[in-house]
Amino acid sequence: MTPTTNGSTATVERTAPERKEPTYLFTEKYVADKSEIARRFIETRARLNANVDKANNFLVKRFYNIDHNTYLEGVLPAKTKELMGLVASACLRCDDCIFYHAIQAYRLGVTRAEQEDSLNVALVVGGSIVIPHLRRAYELLEEMYG
Amino acid sequence: MTPTTNGSTATVERTAPERKEPTYLFTEKYVADKSEIARRFIETRARLNANVDKANNFLVKRFYNIDHNTYLEGVLPAKTKELMGLVASACLRCDDCIFYHAIQAYRLGVTRAEQEDSLNVALVVGGSIVIPHLRRAYELLEEMYG
Amino acid sequence: MTPTTNGSTATVERTAPERKEPTYLFTEKYVADKSEIARRFIETRARLNANVDKANNFLVKRFYNIDHNTYLEGVLPAKTKELMGLVASACLRCDDCIFYHAIQAYRLGVTRAEQEDSLNVALVVGGSIVIPHLRRAYELLEEMYG
Amino acid sequence: MTPTTNGSTATVERTAPERKEPTYLFTEKYVADKSEIARRFIETRARLNANVDKANNFLVKRFYNIDHNTYLEGVLPAKTKELMGLVASACLRCDDCIFYHAIQAYRLGVTRAEQEDSLNVALVVGGSIVIPHLRRAYELLEEMYG
Amino acid sequence: MTPTTNGSTATVERTAPERKEPTYLFTEKYVADKSEIARRFIETRARLNANVDKANNFLVKRFYNIDHNTYLEGVLPAKTKELMGLVASACLRCDDCIFYHAIQAYRLGVTRAEQEDSLNVALVVGGSIVIPHLRRAYELLEEMYG
Amino acid sequence: MTPTTNGSTATVERTAPERKEPTYLFTEKYVADKSEIARRFIETRARLNANVDKANNFLVKRFYNIDHNTYLEGVLPAKTKELMGLVASACLRCDDCIFYHAIQAYRLGVTRAEQEDSLNVALVVGGSIVIPHLRRAYELLEEMYG
Repeated sequence: MTPTTNGSTATVERTAPERKEPTYLFTEKYVADKSEIARRFIETRARLNANVDKANNFLVKRFYNIDHNTYLEGVLPAKTKELMGLVASACLRCDDCIFYHAIQAYRLGVTRAEQEDSLNVALVVGGSIVIPHLRRAYELLEEMYG
Repeated sequence: MTPTTNGSTATVERTAPERKEPTYLFTEKYVADKSEIARRFIETRARLNANVDKANNFLVKRFYNIDHNTYLEGVLPAKTKELMGLVASACLRCDDCIFYHAIQAYRLGVTRAEQEDSLNVALVVGGSIVIPHLRRAYELLEEMYG
Repeated sequence: MTPTTNGSTATVERTAPERKEPTYLFTEKYVADKSEIARRFIETRARLNANVDKANNFLVKRFYNIDHNTYLEGVLPAKTKELMGLVASACLRCDDCIFYHAIQAYRLGVTRAEQEDSLNVALVVGGSIVIPHLRRAYELLEEMYG
Repeated sequence: MTPTTNGSTATVERTAPERKEPTYLFTEKYVADKSEIARRFIETRARLNANVDKANNFLVKRFYNIDHNTYLEGVLPAKTKELMGLVASACLRCDDCIFYHAIQAYRLGVTRAEQEDSLNVALVVGGSIVIPHLRRAYELLEEMYG
Repeated sequence: MTPTTNGSTATVERTAPERKEPTYLFTEKYVADKSEIARRFIETRARLNANVDKANNFLVKRFYNIDHNTYLEGVLPAKTKELMGLVASACLRCDDCIFYHAIQAYRLGVTRAEQEDSLNVALVVGGSIVIPHLRRAYELLEEMYG
Repeated sequence: MTPTTNGSTATVERTAPERKEPTYLFTEKYVADKSEIARRFIETRARLNANVDKANNFLVKRFYNIDHNTYLEGVLPAKTKELMGLVASACLRCDDCIFYHAIQAYRLGVTRAEQEDSLNVALVVGGSIVIPHLRRAYELLEEMYG
């Protein structure tokens, strides 16, 4: 890659990269059938989201929309961005967010090795305080990939 | 990808993925010549690291070593992991860490669009508190890619 | 408001703003009867606080005292400060703290719309990592105001 | 307030609360003329934001837009939400964000006493780690209101 | 202590401080028999760690190793470092980490008063957001020392 | 230590441990003369604190008071608590707080090796995101002890 190439890539990226829905290899139901942890997470999340949806709060809807857009296929593949979401979630130490992105990554065909390699970045950046979340993440990985 | 494929991938990943040094397209000096922000960061970091090295603290050396190992070519490409480091750094709001990973990613040939897409994950996960860091990151991107 | 007015207000504020206990429209018991989530939170908190009180630790008592003083009627109404406590709790992602301030705000007569508007500030400042807490907060709001 | 009243308020809030631009009593220039800290912050922010705008990143623009919407007059007054933004910023320990919201609150006519009362919530929720930011916030308050 | 003494101490510290395993006064089983909270924590941690061990991830193993080394007897006594781990865990608000270090400190003969004094540092540095974790920590202390 | 001993220690600890001012081996001026980083930190802190004091805010004064009480000689030596403050500050990544506690620890006669051992706990708990702060801390240590 030369600086010139960089320049033209930059031009392309500024003229609206195409965003589109990723193709999932597995349904949420498939994952829920493989993993009890995933099932409980998916069901609880669906129930609580239904309650949030009912409130119909303008800004919450806008935020959910932008959140959805973030992980579409774009300049970077959806797979990569789900793994980035996993890293961010593990660094910020949120089990629900870790489960969400690990399940999404699984549904997109990400391997267990790729999930572990991503979690390693979070572990080293975030330190031993991440370990309890890592343990619970590995339990989910074991159920999904085992 | 089928569950069976998942299983065999998992087997492979456990027999020691090869880790090796990534190939940089650009030297630190090249980046420092393009960007004054990069130059100041690289020089300050080198000076302070020399002081840390002199202290020769056993655990610090061990930690630096594990940190170095995290971003090698492995199951995931070094490029992807540097961008994950960028996401983690932006979420956890550390300018030095953001600069470090953005520069490393640049040196590996990552495009500006890919850096921006990564920062978007950090912005949405981490919220508006990330914005001041995003602004400074964009200033660096402008200098490196502009 | 003119700079002169600002100046004199500032003088008043420095001569000890009156702090006094707020008037609750609803008892904790009233809230616990409306919401099972509130009941469990209130009971667990009371049980654990009794244990902390028994320890009679000097600094903990001092801290609890300053904490209590923070949310009294003062320059700002208690309602506003409970909502600020809610925003801080949601940004820092502590379910117990969110439940505590949402219940206190309810008891002071804050509307659901005001609670949601406060949570929006936390969501935008704190990012999507706040969402799992937002979901649980909305479940409590639904039970209290539904 | 009765539960019935709560219910009807809730109905109203769900049919789109009006959001509108707040009325600023003071311009950014007025604040910059009173406070050197404010001037430097406002100028740097403007310069860096111009660079972000030039990049024209779709998701960043969406995020800035939702961020702007959060602090409009709505169910809660803009003043209150700027102070909530101040509390969140101080808890999360971001000087730029603290300066931004303290200046916005000043421009809307918030008194120094109200700013201090808000910062107290952040100090007690966030602990002594907030103190260095509190010191810098008080320096800005002194320049703006002094 | 004189600057000269400081200098020579510094020389000693750089020639490899001896690290060795601390002597535990109590086994994990002893603590588990005294405290139901400790028992549940120790059992869950062991089960989840077995799953992590099975994955045999190179970097995770390295990180666990460095983590283990951090709390050995060294320049500072293991007791002190376990209490520092407790302070860090409480500041960063991780119940599992708090339980881990409080149990380790107990096993090394740390008194309840020393544990409380350590938690006070975390409470004051970290603020009221630490209180829910403090409550749960005191419940564990009560069971272990009661 | 036997459970019985634990019990009686616990009784003692609850009857008000004596808190008293620690004895400093070195003045702030002595440290400022050895280290330019310390000098700048001490001077800036004094100037900004004078401004906070002038505001005479009731809750801020209460908080400063409780903060002061936390680090007095007590159940744990002041030295140990200053090092705990250092660990907490490094984990929470606040340079000002790190400098403050490292200087206080130095003034109480803590060795460089003890400071480094404490920082190692923070590094391992908090991860590589702590490294930029560690580098700056080592620069201060070098100036104070070098």
